[in-house]
Amino acid sequence: MKILRTPGSLRAVLKEHRHKQIGFVPTMGYFHDGHLSLMKRAVQDNDITVVSIFVNPLQFGPNEDLDKYPRDEDRDTELAENQDIDYLFIPTVESMYPHDMHVRLMMNNRTDVLCGASRPGHFDGVITVLAKLFHIVQPDKVYMGMKDAQQFAVVDAFCQDLNFPLELVGVPTVREEDGLAKSSRNVFLSEAERNEAPAINNSLKLGQTLAKSGEKDTSVITACVKEAIEKETSGTIDYVELYRYPELTVTKDICGTVILAVAVRFSNARLIDNVIFEV
Amino acid sequence: MKILRTPGSLRAVLKEHRHKQIGFVPTMGYFHDGHLSLMKRAVQDNDITVVSIFVNPLQFGPNEDLDKYPRDEDRDTELAENQDIDYLFIPTVESMYPHDMHVRLMMNNRTDVLCGASRPGHFDGVITVLAKLFHIVQPDKVYMGMKDAQQFAVVDAFCQDLNFPLELVGVPTVREEDGLAKSSRNVFLSEAERNEAPAINNSLKLGQTLAKSGEKDTSVITACVKEAIEKETSGTIDYVELYRYPELTVTKDICGTVILAVAVRFSNARLIDNVIFEV
Repeated sequence: MKILRTPGSLRAVLKEHRHKQIGFVPTMGYFHDGHLSLMKRAVQDNDITVVSIFVNPLQFGPNEDLDKYPRDEDRDTELAENQDIDYLFIPTVESMYPHDMHVRLMMNNRTDVLCGASRPGHFDGVITVLAKLFHIVQPDKVYMGMKDAQQFAVVDAFCQDLNFPLELVGVPTVREEDGLAKSSRNVFLSEAERNEAPAINNSLKLGQTLAKSGEKDTSVITACVKEAIEKETSGTIDYVELYRYPELTVTKDICGTVILAVAVRFSNARLIDNVIFEV
Repeated sequence: MKILRTPGSLRAVLKEHRHKQIGFVPTMGYFHDGHLSLMKRAVQDNDITVVSIFVNPLQFGPNEDLDKYPRDEDRDTELAENQDIDYLFIPTVESMYPHDMHVRLMMNNRTDVLCGASRPGHFDGVITVLAKLFHIVQPDKVYMGMKDAQQFAVVDAFCQDLNFPLELVGVPTVREEDGLAKSSRNVFLSEAERNEAPAINNSLKLGQTLAKSGEKDTSVITACVKEAIEKETSGTIDYVELYRYPELTVTKDICGTVILAVAVRFSNARLIDNVIFEV
């Protein structure tokens, strides 16, 4: 595995692989099993796999602490190497943003609900850095986790709008045996909270079962999910929402493909999870 | 030469050429010698040349008449064929914009001077359609005319900001024997106006000579150019401006690479021209 630290140096090594199928996993590092499942899938599907680690300043709001974002390059490097990654791209901020940008990218849709509602501008930063990374790597396939289903929906719309020549692959959320979605933040749960946390996924499954068995009213389903989470955990609900997917528009009467998504705050961790299903 | 009318069909035929060097000339059609010089250069430099004709609704303002933009597909097709173009891409509006865009691209710099000053949002439309076209064609080299030097500067900044994997090539303005820049609009000049019009290029050369011979004051040079145009033509000056190039920022004391550019309105045609030079 080679490590590259500037766009130019990565481009130079990828030049000889242009006739091969290139898979790409963009990340902000601090790998957990979710990241590793993206890498596994990319290595399986492609001739060459590139993983990037870049904590993108552009997607952090003024009140979000960019400097405190967890980093562990040595551990990440070892984990990527174990996954048979070919190229690990860890660009410097200076090489990615050598000067103020002349262009500004903004998403008009899919961003003002779920986690995006409390992070104005976040997804604009995400699509901007992805546009850059996609042009540097020129991947055939890009792998993103479905745990961040809103991010997938936003990036999918972005790629389609601008005709990016790549396939976006959504990889299912990796879960603990008890159903809790894997996350770097799970270690910040107290023992009691960790024991309660599987209730999040269970409540989503409950909501899905309700919808599948004929309940058409969105508010009835979200109320049930809320009730279950409040009953079985000590967390505070940030949101429980149900939308059309991937459009992320409101649907009063459930039909077609929908997402049921939650965010719950515990004492030191905010957990998110979702289910996407068809009715 | 093959004509393709949807992004998917062009992609399909280009698939077999991905290992070759692809040149691309994006246009709005109604070809004149300027376009043909771009094509000539592209055919010379590349294995495969793609020319697009797309009158992009997104770059027309609410007061600019999109429907009146001149079109002549049969003539354009013949001219492109004569230049040994491989693929002529004439997409439908529906295939380029199948629905409202989710993403919005905006240029923060280089757009509020020269022609951009009177066309708010114009360059946002230009970069949006170029992002789409670049992703569809995936060219190695893109050819644009230096007559529209502001457009070149904007697109160059855009490509660098987002790391587009292509080389932007600026092709010199093609001129009549008397120095008048070639333009589809020249036919709208009266005979008297046509006889006066070379004064535009001559006045730019006068300004350049002044700067090269030591005049450092921008306002002295633009005043001289204005005076010459007013004296020798019946046109009305829209602007005579001098900026750093390609930054298009104000420079009081001329130094480095600069652009001296003019727009002059005649009874039925507005002509633009520029010189870029180093001091």
